[in-house]
Amino acid sequence: MPSPDPLDPTQREMLDVALDEARAGLAEGGIPIGAALFAADGTVLGRGRNRRVQDDDPSMHAETAAFRAAGRQRDYRDTVMVTTLSPCWYCSGLVRQFGIGAVLVGESTSFTGGHDWLAEHGVRVTVLDDRRCVELMSGFISSRPELWHEDIGQPG
Amino acid sequence: MPSPDPLDPTQREMLDVALDEARAGLAEGGIPIGAALFAADGTVLGRGRNRRVQDDDPSMHAETAAFRAAGRQRDYRDTVMVTTLSPCWYCSGLVRQFGIGAVLVGESTSFTGGHDWLAEHGVRVTVLDDRRCVELMSGFISSRPELWHEDIGQPG
Repeated sequence: MPSPDPLDPTQREMLDVALDEARAGLAEGGIPIGAALFAADGTVLGRGRNRRVQDDDPSMHAETAAFRAAGRQRDYRDTVMVTTLSPCWYCSGLVRQFGIGAVLVGESTSFTGGHDWLAEHGVRVTVLDDRRCVELMSGFISSRPELWHEDIGQPG
Repeated sequence: MPSPDPLDPTQREMLDVALDEARAGLAEGGIPIGAALFAADGTVLGRGRNRRVQDDDPSMHAETAAFRAAGRQRDYRDTVMVTTLSPCWYCSGLVRQFGIGAVLVGESTSFTGGHDWLAEHGVRVTVLDDRRCVELMSGFISSRPELWHEDIGQPG
């Protein structure tokens, strides 16, 4: 695959950044969801992954981690949040509150969060059906259902 | 004032914990919003305050900080999130996703977030009109409007 071109990033190349984060999370024993916040020119402002297990921190979902890594920004309107999985309500709320202009979702088969709600409120939402993302997440949910349910606040 | 009784905490006593956090944030040069997550028996599971300025961290809103401080919990249905100010969409999303059962809001005059949306989705929401909270927040917004607008994602 050619190197990502920051001036013309394809959706695939943007998603690859988030997917790399998700895979790194899995390798650490964590929940394999990754995200990255991009500037309009394709620059990665911040990237991150779910850190519930790694840091024992329930507040660090992938999108939150990417947002945090990007530091304080004055204006998010031209930014794009890329995530391997449909954003949960927590992460959807983040996108809406900070006015992040667009969201690129790797897949929403394993889990459907608030991406339709975001679209209703003016966020440009693109949902892919990336098989790599689906396989990574569905495999994880099958193998660690209790951890997955903890992460989305659905106790058994 | 008598010490809070963990078996019978009044709303005022619960709000005082959040308000103490908000005031500590102001004293640190931060945004004066505080929160605390309580167990059903009145125990404080976690407390925190907005840390945008203190930690240069835009992801640490008061409610998120309190949620984080509470660590990994299995079930939030019987917990109460107490906050000095109506929760923004980010923090409202947190409450909805993790199934926090109830929210106690100090005031919604200075800012109205997603508390009505939470009530529509089954969260038990109580909104007070606590003058101490209103004065703290309205005074801050008047004195630091640019910082406030940054914190809620509304660039000028």
